[in-house]
Amino acid sequence: MAGVKNSSKALSEEVQPRKAFGLAAKDSSGVLSPFTFSRRNNGDDDVTVKVLYCGICHSDLHIIKNEWKITTYPVVPGHEIVGIVTEIGPNVQKFKVGDKAGIGCMVGSCHSCEACDNNLENYCSKMILTYNSIDVDGTITYGGYSDMIVVNEHFVVKFPEKLAMDKAAPLLCAGITVYSPMKTFSLDEPAKHLGVVGLGGLGHVAVKFGKAFGMKVTVISTSSKKKEEAIKTLGADDFLVSSDPQLMQTAMGTMDGIINTVSAKHDVLPLIFLLKTHGKMIMVGVPNAPLELPVFPLIMRGKILAGSSIGGMKQTQEMIDFAAKHNITADIELIKADYVNDAMERLAKADVRYRFVIDVGNTLTAA
Amino acid sequence: MAGVKNSSKALSEEVQPRKAFGLAAKDSSGVLSPFTFSRRNNGDDDVTVKVLYCGICHSDLHIIKNEWKITTYPVVPGHEIVGIVTEIGPNVQKFKVGDKAGIGCMVGSCHSCEACDNNLENYCSKMILTYNSIDVDGTITYGGYSDMIVVNEHFVVKFPEKLAMDKAAPLLCAGITVYSPMKTFSLDEPAKHLGVVGLGGLGHVAVKFGKAFGMKVTVISTSSKKKEEAIKTLGADDFLVSSDPQLMQTAMGTMDGIINTVSAKHDVLPLIFLLKTHGKMIMVGVPNAPLELPVFPLIMRGKILAGSSIGGMKQTQEMIDFAAKHNITADIELIKADYVNDAMERLAKADVRYRFVIDVGNTLTAA
Repeated sequence: MAGVKNSSKALSEEVQPRKAFGLAAKDSSGVLSPFTFSRRNNGDDDVTVKVLYCGICHSDLHIIKNEWKITTYPVVPGHEIVGIVTEIGPNVQKFKVGDKAGIGCMVGSCHSCEACDNNLENYCSKMILTYNSIDVDGTITYGGYSDMIVVNEHFVVKFPEKLAMDKAAPLLCAGITVYSPMKTFSLDEPAKHLGVVGLGGLGHVAVKFGKAFGMKVTVISTSSKKKEEAIKTLGADDFLVSSDPQLMQTAMGTMDGIINTVSAKHDVLPLIFLLKTHGKMIMVGVPNAPLELPVFPLIMRGKILAGSSIGGMKQTQEMIDFAAKHNITADIELIKADYVNDAMERLAKADVRYRFVIDVGNTLTAA
Repeated sequence: MAGVKNSSKALSEEVQPRKAFGLAAKDSSGVLSPFTFSRRNNGDDDVTVKVLYCGICHSDLHIIKNEWKITTYPVVPGHEIVGIVTEIGPNVQKFKVGDKAGIGCMVGSCHSCEACDNNLENYCSKMILTYNSIDVDGTITYGGYSDMIVVNEHFVVKFPEKLAMDKAAPLLCAGITVYSPMKTFSLDEPAKHLGVVGLGGLGHVAVKFGKAFGMKVTVISTSSKKKEEAIKTLGADDFLVSSDPQLMQTAMGTMDGIINTVSAKHDVLPLIFLLKTHGKMIMVGVPNAPLELPVFPLIMRGKILAGSSIGGMKQTQEMIDFAAKHNITADIELIKADYVNDAMERLAKADVRYRFVIDVGNTLTAA
C-alpha cells in the first residue's frame, strides 16, 4: 500500500498528548532508529492498542527509502499490527480492555461515499493509511513499529483467540490483499484451479487460502528453487517455472484465476495463456513500469485483467476469522526490534521465508 | 473476428455439389471480383439460406488484404448475413422454408467442451468461422458476399419479423460484439453510466443498446466532429474529446463501464481514470500493437480490463430479439454489389456512417 502524498513536514512535529516511542526513518537512507513522538488522546470511538507484534511489509521498505516519492520524514512504518486493547472510548462497541486486536493498512475513511457504503473503505478517496498519511486532525499517521497506537474502532479487527499473534500479524495486509480478490472474483470455490505468481509474503499466503477454499493451486515462479517448498511445505498441487515454455505450455488454458503478486515489470502474456475462457488475472503487486499488454489474447477467450488493493474492514474481519477457522498463518521469522535494519536489507534481496515480524512487545524499548 | 490459420490452399478448390456465386478477393490486393464456387448439400441439421443482405465488417477489410496474415485465397468475406430459408434438413427444429434467418461470425463448434456447454461457442477452441476457416468436411468456409449459404441450424438465429433486414444485418457481428460484454459485466442496468470509446460500426450500436438498457451513455472520441451526431442522432447523453485533459478530468471516476471499440494503439490510462471503483473497461477492438498498461491505477480502485469476442448463439438470439423489442438497428449505407470495392476504400478511411450493407439479393448477379 502506498501512502498519500503530503507536503507539509511541519505537521508531523505537532505535539499531541500521548507519549509514544517507535522506530522511524529520518531520511531516504531508510535507516530506522529510535524515535520519540506523540499520539492523540483516546477519542470516543477510539481504542488504544499496546502493540505486541508488527509484520514488515515490502511497502515499508519502499516508503522508508522514499522509492514512491511520497514519504514524509520522519516515518514510522508498520501496518500489520497485533496487540492488546488498553483503553476504549465511551462509544466503542466491539472491544473491551484486554481484548486482542488487529490493525492493517488503514485507520480512517469518509464513511459517506459509495465505496464506504459498500464496505469498501479501501477504495474511499479519503481513506487514511496507517502511516505516512494525513489524519483527520491534520497530523501525520505513524504505524506499528511503535509501542502503542490509537485507532477508531471501525478500523480495528477482533483478533481471534486461537490464532498465533505473531504468525497471523502479516494477514492484516498480505492476507487481506490476496483474500479480497479471491472472494471478489469467485476464486474461492472447490474444484477451481488457482495460479499464484510469485512466492513471497503475499504469494505464500495466497497458496494457503487457495488450499483452504479447496482449490487446486499451482505456483508459478521464475526459478525452480522454491518448488519443493511450495509443494511440500505450503501444500501447492503443482509448480511451473515461468521461463520454461514447454512446462508453461502443458498448463495452457487450465486456470480459472491467477493471483499475480510480482512487483517487477514482467511478461504477462505467458500468464494470460494459462487462463481458461473468462479466466481472471488479478494484479496485487505493483510493477514499477507499465506492462506490455497484447489485447488479442484477452479478446480471443474473454479474459480479464484486474487490480486489487487490500480489502474493506468487514472483509478483513471475515478473512481473519476464516484464517482462524482453517488455521492459516504466515510463515514468519520473528525478529528483535534492533534487527530491523538487517531485516530490511535481507528483504530487499527477498531473503526471507516469507515475512519478518518484529517482536515489538518484548524487544522495542525506549533507550 | 479473425479467421483461423490454415495452410492448405488446395482444400478450397474441392468441388462440392451446390453451385454458388459470390465476390472473392484472390490476392492481398484485396480487390473483390466475381467468383463461382460450390457449397455442400443441405445436411440433416442444416438450413440453406438465400442471402439478401450482408454487412461489411472491418474484419472483412483486414482479411481480404491479409493484414492478419491468416488469409487463404480466394476468400469470400461476410459474416453479417440476413436472408430467407430455402431448404431445411430433416432434423431442423427452429426453421421452416420461407423463414427469415440471420448468420453471424461462426458456423460451427465442437458442442462438447466447457465453453460449448456454457453456451459460449464463441470461445470453443474448435469454433469454425463463417469464412476463411476450415469446415468440418475439410473445405474452406465462404461468407455472405454470396448468393446462398448452407449452415447448421444451431448457428442460425431466427430473425425477428419486425426488424428491417438490411439495417439489422450488422447486429449479427457488431451488435453481439458489444451486447455480450454489456450483459456479462452487468453493464445493462438503468442508472449505470456507460462510456463508449470510438463511434464506428461497433460504437454507435453500443450507444443504442446502452440507451435501451436505460443507462447514461457518454461517447469518448478523439475529435469533437461526431459530437452533435452522437447526442442528437444516436441519443448519447454526453460526449468527451479524449485529447482534452480538462474535459476528461470532469468525468473522472464516473463510469461503471466502458466499451472500448478502438482498434488502433492508444493510451488507455485516461480511459481507466474515467472508471469508478470496480469499474470495467471491455476491449472489443483489436489494437495492432500491445497496449502500455500502468498497473497502479488498476490496483488503486480495483479496476478491471477485459477482452470480449462476439457472443454465444443463445445470447445472439437474445440480442436480436432485444433489438427487435427496442427497435435497435445499425445506421447503414445500403450499397449495390458492384460498389463493394469503393466501399472498402471508404471504410479504410472510416468514411461511413456507420456500416455498409450489401444489397446482395437485388444486386449480386452472376455475370
